[in-house]
Amino acid sequence: MRIGVCPGSFDPITNGHLDIIQRSAYIYDKVIIGVAKNPTKKTLFSLDERMVMVNDSVGKLDEVETKSFTGLLVDFATDQQASVIIKGLRAVSDFEHEFQMAHLNKKLSSKIETVFLMASHDCMFLRSSAVKEIAMYGGSVNGLVSELVEKMLRDKLSGKSQLA
Amino acid sequence: MRIGVCPGSFDPITNGHLDIIQRSAYIYDKVIIGVAKNPTKKTLFSLDERMVMVNDSVGKLDEVETKSFTGLLVDFATDQQASVIIKGLRAVSDFEHEFQMAHLNKKLSSKIETVFLMASHDCMFLRSSAVKEIAMYGGSVNGLVSELVEKMLRDKLSGKSQLA
Amino acid sequence: MRIGVCPGSFDPITNGHLDIIQRSAYIYDKVIIGVAKNPTKKTLFSLDERMVMVNDSVGKLDEVETKSFTGLLVDFATDQQASVIIKGLRAVSDFEHEFQMAHLNKKLSSKIETVFLMASHDCMFLRSSAVKEIAMYGGSVNGLVSELVEKMLRDKLSGKSQLA
Amino acid sequence: MRIGVCPGSFDPITNGHLDIIQRSAYIYDKVIIGVAKNPTKKTLFSLDERMVMVNDSVGKLDEVETKSFTGLLVDFATDQQASVIIKGLRAVSDFEHEFQMAHLNKKLSSKIETVFLMASHDCMFLRSSAVKEIAMYGGSVNGLVSELVEKMLRDKLSGKSQLA
Amino acid sequence: MRIGVCPGSFDPITNGHLDIIQRSAYIYDKVIIGVAKNPTKKTLFSLDERMVMVNDSVGKLDEVETKSFTGLLVDFATDQQASVIIKGLRAVSDFEHEFQMAHLNKKLSSKIETVFLMASHDCMFLRSSAVKEIAMYGGSVNGLVSELVEKMLRDKLSGKSQLA
Amino acid sequence: MRIGVCPGSFDPITNGHLDIIQRSAYIYDKVIIGVAKNPTKKTLFSLDERMVMVNDSVGKLDEVETKSFTGLLVDFATDQQASVIIKGLRAVSDFEHEFQMAHLNKKLSSKIETVFLMASHDCMFLRSSAVKEIAMYGGSVNGLVSELVEKMLRDKLSGKSQLA
Repeated sequence: MRIGVCPGSFDPITNGHLDIIQRSAYIYDKVIIGVAKNPTKKTLFSLDERMVMVNDSVGKLDEVETKSFTGLLVDFATDQQASVIIKGLRAVSDFEHEFQMAHLNKKLSSKIETVFLMASHDCMFLRSSAVKEIAMYGGSVNGLVSELVEKMLRDKLSGKSQLA
Repeated sequence: MRIGVCPGSFDPITNGHLDIIQRSAYIYDKVIIGVAKNPTKKTLFSLDERMVMVNDSVGKLDEVETKSFTGLLVDFATDQQASVIIKGLRAVSDFEHEFQMAHLNKKLSSKIETVFLMASHDCMFLRSSAVKEIAMYGGSVNGLVSELVEKMLRDKLSGKSQLA
Repeated sequence: MRIGVCPGSFDPITNGHLDIIQRSAYIYDKVIIGVAKNPTKKTLFSLDERMVMVNDSVGKLDEVETKSFTGLLVDFATDQQASVIIKGLRAVSDFEHEFQMAHLNKKLSSKIETVFLMASHDCMFLRSSAVKEIAMYGGSVNGLVSELVEKMLRDKLSGKSQLA
Repeated sequence: MRIGVCPGSFDPITNGHLDIIQRSAYIYDKVIIGVAKNPTKKTLFSLDERMVMVNDSVGKLDEVETKSFTGLLVDFATDQQASVIIKGLRAVSDFEHEFQMAHLNKKLSSKIETVFLMASHDCMFLRSSAVKEIAMYGGSVNGLVSELVEKMLRDKLSGKSQLA
Repeated sequence: MRIGVCPGSFDPITNGHLDIIQRSAYIYDKVIIGVAKNPTKKTLFSLDERMVMVNDSVGKLDEVETKSFTGLLVDFATDQQASVIIKGLRAVSDFEHEFQMAHLNKKLSSKIETVFLMASHDCMFLRSSAVKEIAMYGGSVNGLVSELVEKMLRDKLSGKSQLA
Repeated sequence: MRIGVCPGSFDPITNGHLDIIQRSAYIYDKVIIGVAKNPTKKTLFSLDERMVMVNDSVGKLDEVETKSFTGLLVDFATDQQASVIIKGLRAVSDFEHEFQMAHLNKKLSSKIETVFLMASHDCMFLRSSAVKEIAMYGGSVNGLVSELVEKMLRDKLSGKSQLA
C-alpha cells in the first residue's frame, strides 16, 4: 500500500490545500494530512482549531486521515509508514524553498521521497496568509476557503473566539 | 497497480534521467519510460539508438519498461494505463515549462496527474544538450552518462556512426 | 484620448491574447492590435491568415482596431499616436524578456510607456506554440482558441491550406 | 477621466516610487497616491510623517493627489472612482507577489484592473528597507531619496524625532 | 596583493560557507572573513560564539583571517584594503537579493567590486536557518556543519549554553 | 599573477561586455578576452570582424588581451594560465544557465573557478541579440555599442559587407 503524507500548518486550510489533498488521494492508496503542531511561524488558529477545520474539509474523502505532528517531518512520515511526502507548488518562490526542503529531507532519511503536484490554476494565488489578510480587512473569502473556515475566520477576527 | 510514465527524448539518456527513473521505480509499482519518436527538436541520435541507450541504462531495474511513442503524451499514458506522468525538476526554467505542460496535459486528460521529483543535487546541472556540447569539443563525459552512451557519443561525433 | 497598442505575432491568436485585449479595451479609450509582419521566428500562418483570425476574434469589441506593422514597435506606436504599449505577463520567463524589451523601447522612444497586465489564471499556461503542438498531434484545442482558429489550425495541419 | 491609484506604505518614499508616480501621471488623467495607514509590517515613520514626505516629493506634480487609506485596497480604489491600480515591478520576487495580489484583487473586485510599470533601471535596486538600513549604519542615501526624506531619516535615527 | 572580504552572520558557519571561503582563498591572495556584529536578524549564537565557530572551521587555512565588523560592509572592506567582496550564490532568491546589495554597495563605494561564486552542488541547499531548524527538532546535522558547530548547536538547544 | 578569462561570442561586443571587461581588469592582474570561434549559435559577424570590434573597444585598456579560441573553455583558460573565468550576470535566466555551465566547467577542470560580476544597472538589458534586432529595423544603437560597431552593423545590414 502506497501511503503519502501531506504536511502543513493549515492556518487555515484553503481550497488550494484541498485541491492538492484530493489529487493526492487519487494517486496514492492512503493520504495522511500532517498538521504541524509548532510551525516556525506564529499561527492565528490553535492546533485544535486547525484540526477541526481540516477534518471538516476532508471529512468526505475516503482514505484520508488527519493527524498532528511535532518534530521532524521525515520522522512523522516514517512513523506513518509513508513512502512519500506530497507538496503543492504554486510559484517560483515555493519551488526554491521546497527544493531546499526536499534535499534536506532526503539527507535526513533516504527512504522518503518528496513528490510535487502543481497547484491548479484557480488555486495558484491562494495562500493562507492572503486569506487572513483579506478577512482582517473585511473582504470576502468566499470561494477561497470552506464555509466553516469562513465562519471561524470571522469569529476569530471579531474576537468571538479566544486568540490561539 | 500504480503505473507511472517517464517521458523524454533521451538524446542521450544521462545519469540525471537514470536518477529520476530509479526513484520513480521506488515509489510506483511499474514505470514505463516513454521515448518520444518525434520530439520538437532535432535529435543527434536516431530513435533506435536512443532506445538502445535507455535499455542499456535501465536493464537492471525491475518493473521498468521502455517504449517509444508518438503523438500526445496523455494519449500514450492512457494507453499504458498509467495514472501519473513523472517529471524531474532541476531549475526555475524547467519549473515554468513543466508547469505549463502539466496544466495543458490536465486539460487534455483530467485522469492523468503529473508529479514532479526534484533532481538530486549532483544531477541538477546535467542536461543532454550540455553532454553533447562537451563531447563535441572533446571533453570527457565520464560520470555524466553510462559507458555505452559515452562510447556511442564518441562514435557518433567522430563519424563512425551514421548521423540520425 | 488614451490609445494603447497590443503587439504580437498572433500565430495564432489564443484566448489568452483575447483576454488581454478585452481588459486593455476596458482601461484605454482605444486599442490598436499590432500584428507583426515579420516576427523574428518563422510563423505557421501567413500575415493575412493571422489578420483574419485576429479580426474574427475581436470583431465584436468596440474601439479595437487591427493593423499589421513592420519595423520597430515604438515607431508603429508613435504612428498610431499611442502613449502606451500593453503586454500580458504570464510567467517569470515572460517577465525577464519583457523587462528587457520595455527598457530598450524606453531608450528608443521616451514618449512611449509599456504597461503590463497579468494573465488571467485560466490563460496563464496558454501559448501559441503549445496550441500548435497540441493541434499537430491531434489533440483538441477547444477552449484555448476561437472556433475559426480551431478550424484553420486543422486545415493548415492537414494540408488543406497552403503553408505560409 | 482615467484615474489610477498608486498604493504603498512609503516608509519612506524613495526616488523609485517617485519615478513610478511620475510615469503614471503621464499615462493617466489623475493619479491618487494611497498611503497605507496600517501596513502589515511595522513602519519606521508614522502615517503623518510618511504623508509629509510623500507630499513634499510629489508637490510639483499636477493631477497627483495623496490620501491615506485603511482596509482593502480595492475598496479604496473604488471609493476614488479609479479604474486601475498601478504598481512598479523591480524583480522576479516582486513579480510573484504582485501576481498573487493582482489575482486576489481581481477576485475581490472585477471592476479594478492592476497595471504594472517596470522600474527604471536606476531604480531597480531601490527599496525602502535598504534605504533605512544604509541610513542606520551611517551611509549616505543621497540620490536615493529626496532631501527632506534624507533629513527626516537622519533625525529619526539620531533620536531627534519621536519613534512612530 | 588582492584582498577579498567574505561577509556574513555565520549563525552558525556551515560547510557551505566553508566551501566558498576555501575557493576564495584559492583565487585571492588573502581572505578576510567579516562576521557581522549586529545582523538585521536576531542570532541564535552570540558574536563570540560565532567567532569561535568560524575560527575553528578556517583555522587550517593559510591567508584567511577572521574579524568582526559593525556598520556598512563597504566601510569594513575599505578599512581592510580589500578590493572585492565575495558572496556565494545558491538560488534565484539569493541572486535577486545579492544583485540589489551589489548595486547599492557599488553606489556607496565605487572602489569595491562584488564577485560571486556559485555554491558547490552539495552545498546548494544548505542554509544556517535550516541547520538550526533540523537541530531544534532533534535531527542530525552531521555532514552539514563542523563537529564543533554540531556540539555547540546541541548544547545551545539543550540549554547547556546561555542564550545569546 | 592573477589571470582571468572573459569568454563570449561578442556578436557584436556591446557596452555591457565592455563594462564587465573593465571591471575585471580592475580586480585581476591580466584579463584575456576569449572570442569563441565556433559558438553554438550562428553569428552575424565573422570571427575576424568580431575580433576587430573587440580590439577596437578594449584597445585603450592595459593588461587586456584579445584571443580567439575553439574547443572547451576550460582548456582555453588552462592554456592561458588563468585561474578564473569571469562572467557577467544580468537576469535570472542568465543565472540559471551560468550556474549550469559553472558546475560543468568545475567538473571538467577543478583548477578553474568561475566568478560572476553583476551587470551595471544601465547594461542590465543589453544583449547582442537585441542590438542586432534594433539595427535590423532601423533603430539607433547609439549608446549601446561603440561607434565602430554601430558603423559595422549598419554596413552589414545594408549589404555593404559580405555576410559571415
